[in-house]
Amino acid sequence: MALPKIILHGYWRSSASYRVRIALNMKGVAVTHRSVNLRAGDQKQSAHLDLNPQGYVPILELEDGTCLTQSLAVLDYLDATYPEPALMPRDAILRSKILAASLVIASDIHPIQNLSVLKYIRAEYGQGDAAVKEWVQHWITRGFESLEAMGNASKEFFLTDTPMFFECCLIPQIYNARRFGVDMTPFPKLLAVEARCQALSAFENALPENQADAPTADE
Amino acid sequence: MALPKIILHGYWRSSASYRVRIALNMKGVAVTHRSVNLRAGDQKQSAHLDLNPQGYVPILELEDGTCLTQSLAVLDYLDATYPEPALMPRDAILRSKILAASLVIASDIHPIQNLSVLKYIRAEYGQGDAAVKEWVQHWITRGFESLEAMGNASKEFFLTDTPMFFECCLIPQIYNARRFGVDMTPFPKLLAVEARCQALSAFENALPENQADAPTADE
Repeated sequence: MALPKIILHGYWRSSASYRVRIALNMKGVAVTHRSVNLRAGDQKQSAHLDLNPQGYVPILELEDGTCLTQSLAVLDYLDATYPEPALMPRDAILRSKILAASLVIASDIHPIQNLSVLKYIRAEYGQGDAAVKEWVQHWITRGFESLEAMGNASKEFFLTDTPMFFECCLIPQIYNARRFGVDMTPFPKLLAVEARCQALSAFENALPENQADAPTADE
Repeated sequence: MALPKIILHGYWRSSASYRVRIALNMKGVAVTHRSVNLRAGDQKQSAHLDLNPQGYVPILELEDGTCLTQSLAVLDYLDATYPEPALMPRDAILRSKILAASLVIASDIHPIQNLSVLKYIRAEYGQGDAAVKEWVQHWITRGFESLEAMGNASKEFFLTDTPMFFECCLIPQIYNARRFGVDMTPFPKLLAVEARCQALSAFENALPENQADAPTADE
């Protein structure tokens, strides 16, 4: 069987790649996964920079070679191109609120704990593992506090009764939070959404440890 | 004459507020401006946190009291509600590319140089003015290098022949870059877009120094 012609350039543990994997699974869009090993520095190679001058993952490479970058912009493309199930509602206000919550993660949490920022703090400010962990925990906790206040507890998911755009962002960020030892107990609304998402195969199949490029347990 | 019922809670020098001011001007939507003095800490007062638990500006408060937050989500709402002139094209790929470029600014530059991050670096890592300036310059320059490679030089503006969603993000970010002394000479494409935007009243009227809460020259 031929491999799907749409290619997702990503990395198992990249939370922005993880967002796109969830959306692709929800939409039922088959892609060929191509691993960009961030720990080995693949993202700084010219082959990668030719596809995305920013040197980040994910990149969704379409059949004609068009490369889409920035996970939220990829989600927007997928939702426009594969309408079912919808990642965004039609109502402009609800849509704006879902996007705002997604941006709390994609703008105000994730970039500040990105690999390149952590490297800067280590190299320029001489900070070690404990300080880096504290930095990451600080920004995740601060963002999650806002989100906990923004959710609608009367809905099955964050603001809606089906998982949407926001849930594609939330689940990878909670995964990251656990990795950095963030105390999740103050965030019951977020945890309830997480539990409902985890029961769905679109989310399960997108899990970092379920990717082909994830290391085996003893690595 | 009664004041417009839509309220923009913002701050003259906040670049996220500046993005929304440009979009409102482009759409011809009249709002009442309410200043949130970030230097005085207004954003941490409960009156503000009741409107936006994140404690940031801008907030677009609609006639019915609904509060929209996160500047890109506000732009999305405005574009859905006031279709002309469009901030986004209909083509899904071009739309995704415009959003991706906007997210380079709104996710990968601006939050890392946000006031709260700079405060953390000063307080926790003991960094002074010179180091903070270097930090800000580093992230802006890195982001602008990517954007310079992403633009379409055959178009009047960044990727299109009219100013759109991205230009609402770019102009405030260039304003910030100048404020922090970033060398703009390596970015001729961005500068060409800036020059075309500066000639338009929607951008001119949104300038920080043209806002009612901007300090006078001798402050």
